[in-house]
Amino acid sequence: MATAPEPAPPARGAVPPDAVELVCTGDELLNGRTLNRHGQTLGARLPALGLRLARETIVPDDAAAIEDAVRAALARASAVVVSGGLGPTTDDLTREAVAHLFGRRIVTDAGALEALERRYAGWGRTLSELSRRQARVVEGFTVLPNSAGAAPGQRLETGGRALFLLPGPPREFLALLEDHVLPILGQRAGAGRRRPQRVFRTCGLPESNAAQALEGIGLPGGGIDVAYCAAPGRVDVRLLGPPGAADAALDATAARVRALLGDVVFTEDDLEEMEHVVGRLLAARGATLAVAESCTGGLIGHRVTQVAGSSAWFLGGVVAYANESKTRDLGVDAGAISAHGAVSEPVARAMAAGVRARFGAACGLAVTGVAGPGGGTPEKPVGTVWMAVADAAGGAAKLIRGLGERSVIKDFASGMALDLLRRRLLGLTV
Amino acid sequence: MATAPEPAPPARGAVPPDAVELVCTGDELLNGRTLNRHGQTLGARLPALGLRLARETIVPDDAAAIEDAVRAALARASAVVVSGGLGPTTDDLTREAVAHLFGRRIVTDAGALEALERRYAGWGRTLSELSRRQARVVEGFTVLPNSAGAAPGQRLETGGRALFLLPGPPREFLALLEDHVLPILGQRAGAGRRRPQRVFRTCGLPESNAAQALEGIGLPGGGIDVAYCAAPGRVDVRLLGPPGAADAALDATAARVRALLGDVVFTEDDLEEMEHVVGRLLAARGATLAVAESCTGGLIGHRVTQVAGSSAWFLGGVVAYANESKTRDLGVDAGAISAHGAVSEPVARAMAAGVRARFGAACGLAVTGVAGPGGGTPEKPVGTVWMAVADAAGGAAKLIRGLGERSVIKDFASGMALDLLRRRLLGLTV
Repeated sequence: MATAPEPAPPARGAVPPDAVELVCTGDELLNGRTLNRHGQTLGARLPALGLRLARETIVPDDAAAIEDAVRAALARASAVVVSGGLGPTTDDLTREAVAHLFGRRIVTDAGALEALERRYAGWGRTLSELSRRQARVVEGFTVLPNSAGAAPGQRLETGGRALFLLPGPPREFLALLEDHVLPILGQRAGAGRRRPQRVFRTCGLPESNAAQALEGIGLPGGGIDVAYCAAPGRVDVRLLGPPGAADAALDATAARVRALLGDVVFTEDDLEEMEHVVGRLLAARGATLAVAESCTGGLIGHRVTQVAGSSAWFLGGVVAYANESKTRDLGVDAGAISAHGAVSEPVARAMAAGVRARFGAACGLAVTGVAGPGGGTPEKPVGTVWMAVADAAGGAAKLIRGLGERSVIKDFASGMALDLLRRRLLGLTV
Repeated sequence: MATAPEPAPPARGAVPPDAVELVCTGDELLNGRTLNRHGQTLGARLPALGLRLARETIVPDDAAAIEDAVRAALARASAVVVSGGLGPTTDDLTREAVAHLFGRRIVTDAGALEALERRYAGWGRTLSELSRRQARVVEGFTVLPNSAGAAPGQRLETGGRALFLLPGPPREFLALLEDHVLPILGQRAGAGRRRPQRVFRTCGLPESNAAQALEGIGLPGGGIDVAYCAAPGRVDVRLLGPPGAADAALDATAARVRALLGDVVFTEDDLEEMEHVVGRLLAARGATLAVAESCTGGLIGHRVTQVAGSSAWFLGGVVAYANESKTRDLGVDAGAISAHGAVSEPVARAMAAGVRARFGAACGLAVTGVAGPGGGTPEKPVGTVWMAVADAAGGAAKLIRGLGERSVIKDFASGMALDLLRRRLLGLTV
């Protein structure tokens, strides 16, 4: 075992027991070549265990920078996950950096080597000297078998902290997370640290209005935190309860927030987008949808077909970008276009009715607007968008004014149009 | 100005002049809700200036964590960029954290407030008390106007370091980078550090093939680095010359790379996407386009209408998601669908010809495929996509096999379909 006397581990003081840190290594994560998704992968999976990703640090393939980042993370968090730098090449330096930090040697693990040899034999290949390096681990670390690749993970418990070294390729990182890291972290955390949470995803409410409304009535209180996350046409309001509290500890506050926000909340499920909600409502009613898009150019169709199984309720649509298509394919009266303009309530209503009739759908949804940068007028500036829904009972229309550049106006309009349909399906005012 | 005595700035020692650090703030970046792209956005743009992203740190909406991360970054790097936390709500804490770090007050900037008021007046709204908070800046910091949103950026030169505070929304972050941060960093770095660069954006070439091909002929050399950046259906090959070299120093290597990659290169302009290239080619020919989409659900229409001015050459299209729409709206022979299946060459060709005829367009472009997760068969597994183009001279079709989940297959198919049109317009083999 260790030939040198064991140095003090990097940190032993008390740290927040729910804090997990991630250290990602790799030049490719810092020079724009690779989009780093490890933080999202790990961060999304921790709250359910009552843990949180407290910090993510990304450093290059540089042993001193890796050692420094791991030391600092161990001083702040109860668990540290390190990604990358376990491969066979000379720029894989995580083993060396961590061994140096702990004053340990690097040794070949017999079990890991055997697993590598089996893996290569299965491909009819022999293990090269270079590939053998992947069986080298920091002395005293526990080997974590890799079900998705060659290099195993490694784990150490030290000074009350858990340290995990995982390979960098996303599939292998995820496999080791699911197979080893998350089960161990869940065990360590126990039930007492988990923070209950509740989300209200809203459409049509500016972030500052949501915040003002909540602040106005003195919400939340009792150790409950609130956070906002905004995207074009959408604001998420999230409540987080105190550590160890039961889900029910949020019930009273959630009920007040729910009452305050009202029917702008389109879901309380974190994983649902507006298109999922609309799809669920249509499916529940056995209803079908066809869309007529002008300024959104196909974005609404794109969004609804991101939903797996959308072919059960989405029939298709017409992208009526040119005015001739509005008359020819959707039966919009050419006189209505010259009288009111293509961006107008009568044209939006006629488009919705027209696409509904053409596709024989239960619902028709239409959007016509000025996405910019050109095409604005004093009466109809860039961002002016009319939208309409048509169904067996008639229809409804709505005017919105989007702000920002073309892509933001399209995003905003597509979300507001889907929300118009949601409100119509639920019998809410539009 | 400052009422308290100015404390020492956080760091004054020598740091690597090319090291830039990024500190990203936001709970949503650590709990899995938002994929953080700021590191890639900034990291990809620094090498051209002779700079490198030396570390990225992501911290939650917590003033102490933000302050700690900014202090540590200023001790290591010559420039620090901070993203997020400049909005109007109580979880926007970057101003407070940085003000505390420097022992400064937070003040309302008259110019920033005026700009906000103008912005809101342009929308016919008055500025709420909450929204006014976005004009509050750390005393003595220079305001950086935001061309893409409400909250301005802020800048300080301190102890030989440049510190930038930028808003978190990606479009605003990018606008402030391009408008202010990169020009200032470039100036600070000086021409002697600038590295000339050349990019080749390719479609239809796997990343490993591109790398292998370039390595095979011993490219590049002479202090020239090559970097790859891959997205579904697209690989960018980037050449970076030695610091201080003239643009012409890349000419010879660029010519060899251009010859090697050939016509898979769709642009050498960093800011051009495939839809811009296709739009440019159509506009130059006075030609128009109509699209018929099945599995992409409107994504191709969405992409081409992201191009400002696309109404000059894009007429619209049909989202023929249901088979009935393929026959009714595009004139596809029902017999062809039953004989070959909806995902087949004859159906793709008929869709392209049908949408071209219906819209009276010079070119028709069609896609039909299995986006999954359901609908795959042994002969036509998930990811099987047929695409076709039709024009006055006839047409062409192509089969691709995408890998991954629904959204990736749609992205890949939309890019490959636009590339099919590009190749057809240029008279290249498909």
